[in-house]
Amino acid sequence: MHKSSKLTVGLGDRAYDIVVGRGLITRADELAGDILTGRHAIIISDDNVASLHAPALAAACDRICRRYDQLTVPAGESSKSMSVLSTLLESILDLGVDRDVVLIALGGGVVGDLVGFAAASLLRGVDFIQVPTSLLAQVDSSVGGKTGVNAAAGKNLIGAFHQPKLVLADTETLDTLPLRELRAGYAEVIKYGLLGDASFFEWLEANGAAVLARDPDTLARAILTSCEAKARIVEADEREAGQRALLNLGHTFAHAFEAMAGYDGRLLHGEAVGTGMVLAYDLAVEMGLCHGQEAGRASAHIAASGLSTRLADLPVCDATNDELIAIMQRDKKARQGNMRFIVPRAIGDSFVCDDVTMETLARVLDASRG
Amino acid sequence: MHKSSKLTVGLGDRAYDIVVGRGLITRADELAGDILTGRHAIIISDDNVASLHAPALAAACDRICRRYDQLTVPAGESSKSMSVLSTLLESILDLGVDRDVVLIALGGGVVGDLVGFAAASLLRGVDFIQVPTSLLAQVDSSVGGKTGVNAAAGKNLIGAFHQPKLVLADTETLDTLPLRELRAGYAEVIKYGLLGDASFFEWLEANGAAVLARDPDTLARAILTSCEAKARIVEADEREAGQRALLNLGHTFAHAFEAMAGYDGRLLHGEAVGTGMVLAYDLAVEMGLCHGQEAGRASAHIAASGLSTRLADLPVCDATNDELIAIMQRDKKARQGNMRFIVPRAIGDSFVCDDVTMETLARVLDASRG
Repeated sequence: MHKSSKLTVGLGDRAYDIVVGRGLITRADELAGDILTGRHAIIISDDNVASLHAPALAAACDRICRRYDQLTVPAGESSKSMSVLSTLLESILDLGVDRDVVLIALGGGVVGDLVGFAAASLLRGVDFIQVPTSLLAQVDSSVGGKTGVNAAAGKNLIGAFHQPKLVLADTETLDTLPLRELRAGYAEVIKYGLLGDASFFEWLEANGAAVLARDPDTLARAILTSCEAKARIVEADEREAGQRALLNLGHTFAHAFEAMAGYDGRLLHGEAVGTGMVLAYDLAVEMGLCHGQEAGRASAHIAASGLSTRLADLPVCDATNDELIAIMQRDKKARQGNMRFIVPRAIGDSFVCDDVTMETLARVLDASRG
Repeated sequence: MHKSSKLTVGLGDRAYDIVVGRGLITRADELAGDILTGRHAIIISDDNVASLHAPALAAACDRICRRYDQLTVPAGESSKSMSVLSTLLESILDLGVDRDVVLIALGGGVVGDLVGFAAASLLRGVDFIQVPTSLLAQVDSSVGGKTGVNAAAGKNLIGAFHQPKLVLADTETLDTLPLRELRAGYAEVIKYGLLGDASFFEWLEANGAAVLARDPDTLARAILTSCEAKARIVEADEREAGQRALLNLGHTFAHAFEAMAGYDGRLLHGEAVGTGMVLAYDLAVEMGLCHGQEAGRASAHIAASGLSTRLADLPVCDATNDELIAIMQRDKKARQGNMRFIVPRAIGDSFVCDDVTMETLARVLDASRG
């Protein structure tokens, strides 16, 4: 038996636990017993993950559920659509469910966001459990209750806030995760250090290589600390009225890079975030808000993790400033066309900034290309 | 200037006002000024209602909004679908909105439910205003925050709880409402008397004819009292954990009748509810829970309002008990196949009952056919 750690996300009557450790899926009947016992569970996965992890989860459900079913959606970002959501909801309803049903999202961020939104919308809201199987999903999408699908106009523009009843972050699922995806997920781990926790960033500088080498205890600690950091922020600001925006460090840039790349797999979200965070530091230095030494330290660790630090190294390096800025102005966080950036003052200290000028932004983008 | 009355639905930080009166749409800039001033409004209507009422609402928006747009969806129940929702959301996003946007639902229950769900899902939740233009929507859908669309498996199976910021129930819009729809809406007015307010029912016995003759003051009072009754119940039980179920008096029957009719316009929701309420009283009498005299009084007023009181008089009179009961067992309110009925003890007194036997139910249905 491996050890596991537990964290409670304190959101009043929507509070829930995140369990981090190895071999959790096999023990899901024990860990989720108070939620699943005697109920109807539906395991929803994608056609990649289903073959790897669904059998163990199904066996656990079989031991305690009144009934369980399994559904799959196609793997990949294209499943985060209204069309797949609609098909999924009809498939769930065809099973003859009532409000007693529990949806279990088994997969990466796409499955988690899609199934979370399905749970929010089915019968105006049913329970769901997240079993994230990528590092990105374990540290990011599993905390905070953001669910949703993409629209033609952009990513995540349609969705709901809907908290899971439980998150099981089984680090054993990361054994089979491609290194490129592990690195992309690690960019979000770095983010929690950079945006608000200098000592965690220092720990990552020392231990990042072990995380990427999938050392179980180091990996678990990195995930738990990231979830704790996100949980503290979400507890203070569930509906993203203020502080929660800090979680978007690097994301105004990243969303524009991803939109230009067209979500075709050439540029992963975490890869875009890695470069986006470097650009956020560049912006801060350019605006005289952050010391160049701090920016250099952030950039060095991102590079050391095998992530790109310059626009020149991204598959969207030939996007023009006008193209990128036009996307940033349409970002969900923008208000009346004013772009919103999270700007770091140092390692572990950042704030929301609404008055970045186009000229400053253009200089920063150009420098990252040159 | 006509007088108007205001009611506040007290839901903490989701509290909102319902204004009832004549000529409110023309005064929308004054009545909704604190919500709309300086913001981007999108008036969403159906292609019947748009020509009647959108120009006056657009003129009001033009006086105070930073920007306003108008969108329409096809009239009729078929617009309450994931497919129309998806098209509507993409159309809204194509306008280049951010979280500052306010959706205005101008129309009957279909538009209100669809636009409310769009507002719940757009950017994970934006503000919306209800301007209901049918009696049913004014007394029912405008209070309580239930939004949603239909699925192949049944009505309203996909949706969200999302409260409007304001409801403007302009009784002038009822001038052009067909009498059949007015009567169907009136069934829900009667419901508020029957489920919990004997003195309101008594007032309706005396004044129902004036309501159906569209006497402005009588109509406004009936709407306001119905909204107050629903608001009190919703305030006590926003997410339908308990008491809110009482609002479904007659609805377990009604939903089955509507499903059998196929939502093709042959049987309006309110018409099904009228007959459903009579059957709920029949059921109560059959179970020895209610005096026959009370049931007779309920049935007499429903009949006097021009509504059918017997299954024999509905277009689904040839549906078998098995067909109807199978639908009732799939109802959203059912738990693990146990049907849930709201059973009246008298005029103005009802309770939630989960142990109606199939035999009792079959006897009641048969008697209503014979």
